[in-house]
Amino acid sequence: MTEGTPTSSRLSRRALLGGGAVLAGTTLGGGVVGHAVGALGNGRSETMPSTDGVAGPGAAGRPGSDAVAGKATEPFWGAHQSGIATPHQAHGVFLGFDLRRGADANSVRSMLRMLTDDAARLTAGRGPLGAVDAELATTPARLTVTFGFGVGLFDAIGKPEACPPHVRSMPAFRTDRLDRRWGSTDLLLQVCSEDPMTLTFAERRLVRDASDFATLRWAQRGFLPARGTEPDGTTPRNLMGMRDGTANESDPNEVAAVLWNDGSTHPWLAGGSQLVLRRIRIDMATWDDLEIEAKEVAFGRRVADGSPLNGSKESDSIDREAVDEQGFTIISPTAHAARAQARSGRERMIRRPYNYAVDTETGTETGTEEGLLFAAYQADLGTAFVPVQRRLAESDALNTWTTHIGSASYAIPPGAKEGSFVGDTLLRA
Amino acid sequence: MTEGTPTSSRLSRRALLGGGAVLAGTTLGGGVVGHAVGALGNGRSETMPSTDGVAGPGAAGRPGSDAVAGKATEPFWGAHQSGIATPHQAHGVFLGFDLRRGADANSVRSMLRMLTDDAARLTAGRGPLGAVDAELATTPARLTVTFGFGVGLFDAIGKPEACPPHVRSMPAFRTDRLDRRWGSTDLLLQVCSEDPMTLTFAERRLVRDASDFATLRWAQRGFLPARGTEPDGTTPRNLMGMRDGTANESDPNEVAAVLWNDGSTHPWLAGGSQLVLRRIRIDMATWDDLEIEAKEVAFGRRVADGSPLNGSKESDSIDREAVDEQGFTIISPTAHAARAQARSGRERMIRRPYNYAVDTETGTETGTEEGLLFAAYQADLGTAFVPVQRRLAESDALNTWTTHIGSASYAIPPGAKEGSFVGDTLLRA
Repeated sequence: MTEGTPTSSRLSRRALLGGGAVLAGTTLGGGVVGHAVGALGNGRSETMPSTDGVAGPGAAGRPGSDAVAGKATEPFWGAHQSGIATPHQAHGVFLGFDLRRGADANSVRSMLRMLTDDAARLTAGRGPLGAVDAELATTPARLTVTFGFGVGLFDAIGKPEACPPHVRSMPAFRTDRLDRRWGSTDLLLQVCSEDPMTLTFAERRLVRDASDFATLRWAQRGFLPARGTEPDGTTPRNLMGMRDGTANESDPNEVAAVLWNDGSTHPWLAGGSQLVLRRIRIDMATWDDLEIEAKEVAFGRRVADGSPLNGSKESDSIDREAVDEQGFTIISPTAHAARAQARSGRERMIRRPYNYAVDTETGTETGTEEGLLFAAYQADLGTAFVPVQRRLAESDALNTWTTHIGSASYAIPPGAKEGSFVGDTLLRA
Repeated sequence: MTEGTPTSSRLSRRALLGGGAVLAGTTLGGGVVGHAVGALGNGRSETMPSTDGVAGPGAAGRPGSDAVAGKATEPFWGAHQSGIATPHQAHGVFLGFDLRRGADANSVRSMLRMLTDDAARLTAGRGPLGAVDAELATTPARLTVTFGFGVGLFDAIGKPEACPPHVRSMPAFRTDRLDRRWGSTDLLLQVCSEDPMTLTFAERRLVRDASDFATLRWAQRGFLPARGTEPDGTTPRNLMGMRDGTANESDPNEVAAVLWNDGSTHPWLAGGSQLVLRRIRIDMATWDDLEIEAKEVAFGRRVADGSPLNGSKESDSIDREAVDEQGFTIISPTAHAARAQARSGRERMIRRPYNYAVDTETGTETGTEEGLLFAAYQADLGTAFVPVQRRLAESDALNTWTTHIGSASYAIPPGAKEGSFVGDTLLRA
């Protein structure tokens, strides 16, 4: 081997799963799709056992240190997609794709079959079909791949009415400073793993296999504090130094009630969810200069342990009515935790955010933009995120330092049964 | 607190360490510098005990999983800087600064005193002087901050002759496709930690405190496989899937012989080192499509365990002369491991690379550039990196997929004695 001629294996990949035919301008019939299903089925014995996907205790928390070995896997097949109630992995990337011109239900179905197959294999620690070297796939480290559908996908497949209203159109909020660059795309893949190498490999392969059908408009990558930095079970800090995610439910039944859509208005979405992804830039320079007491007033919680100012430990509830000896409310009415607190069970979300830091260039000088990829799952955006964000936009002491610069929302299909594909309930003829 | 007025604490910071005076256009006299040293000295009781900085077994390897708690620290003060022979942390960022116009020996000295103080505090788990909230500093997670001096710094302080020749000018190599964007800067800070949150916090504070004196031209951030993904002691894979760093010495005496300059030609550099940082883009799409046997021929090592093709385990030496039954050399003469192998003890380096993946925009489409931040320390670039890279540029099977797009080189000053500052031996009047 002195010349290193690359050996392409993409043709067989395409032949098996039907990707190449779209490039050639033809639409695939049922026969080839049937072949694809057969190819998927052949992998069954190697995949993880199916589970019902209901989160156990610690949902959206973080697993213990002993659970992060490279071989650890999360289930892929099941009633719900993984990566939602799944304990929060240390690294994540959100990949926003737009369908190529001319996409229709058939091509979207082919794409979803292929990406489902990729995701099932990668999350089980195997290379995607046709990959000649899967060394980097062998340490999934709790890899999950979660699919979301944006408004453009519903229109492309000719089912605009199947799109939930707040996925179609998110209301404008007073404090929005949105850059269309980070807006909703036709397809979202949320990829999470304990290992940034695995994440990079999975991203590369998914983008590549999607490329016949869709182009990547944005990739938003983030991280949590490294596992082991603090004792297991500690709520991770965000870049503002505050513990983030305290208010998440942990009881599995409550988690399920918050997350899973019942399909009453959009039957195909039963067992699915809805996701909003907000890119929130934080002005760290001025935040860093704020005295700790002022930070705690703005948050309504203590920096050290995340406890509410009206309580003594992190698990204590925010009490907006509690008063001090002078009769003043202990928690400021404009404190973030007070404004964000759910006013009813329907306003609850499961927050699954990642911190981000990206280098930005301005002329010859480089700066770093820091912030939060606020990702929150819920059964219905209209009853949870929308009223909460409206309240925060009206008044939130943190608005001085935080700016929402991106917003994207997606319908999250239910999980797929083994041998089927994610989106089957929507794309079924 | 409803308005959140930022409370600046920078003035006291500047007054203590002299940064502000430069902005005001005055040069600091010995009295104020004396004050600064006093301020540094006051922190002594809180700092880590000094060590001689000689690496123990496992130098440039990785520590065991039990050593990654957030409170774990690396020494800052000592005969050598940390971050060189220090076991390789999971996350790293290289920060390239250019001095502001008009910099001279006095302002550079003030800058180095301030950044030394920041680095000493941050690596010990404390906030920089004047920071009102150091919550994110309390988990250093083996944070190190390593200083490097580029040619522009030597010229600015009026000591051009103190700059080692290959720091002043790196020869061009046949395969170079260098983008000046990633070229040598006046100052380098290599910041490494097990935790990306800590890294982000340290970067933000160092860039901020440097900003009176220098602007950030580039930041190059990278990662290794997550700790715990593979058993402790496993050589980490790079994004090509190959184990990277196998050839590094591990015996502390050999490590010291490779790393530390003896000061024979540049006395101020005794106990210091030299660093080359090459940004190497990798064409992953074509590499992924290559059969595993072809990859192994190109590397000269096996993908699975990193063993040389002429041996059976990773620690076996590359034997360029070994032949098979037909009399052909087992390792191709153009294999990377064969071409890169040190031809003498003087050609050895300690490789301390990070993988990188950055999203790139081309019109409306986003792609990901992947590659390696090849960082290698050695006593003298002219006897180690330069001849090795010349050989690789002449012929290396990997050149088909790898492109050197950035090159920066630095003199690495020796470590500082507690109460002194990094660069003292160069800046001493």
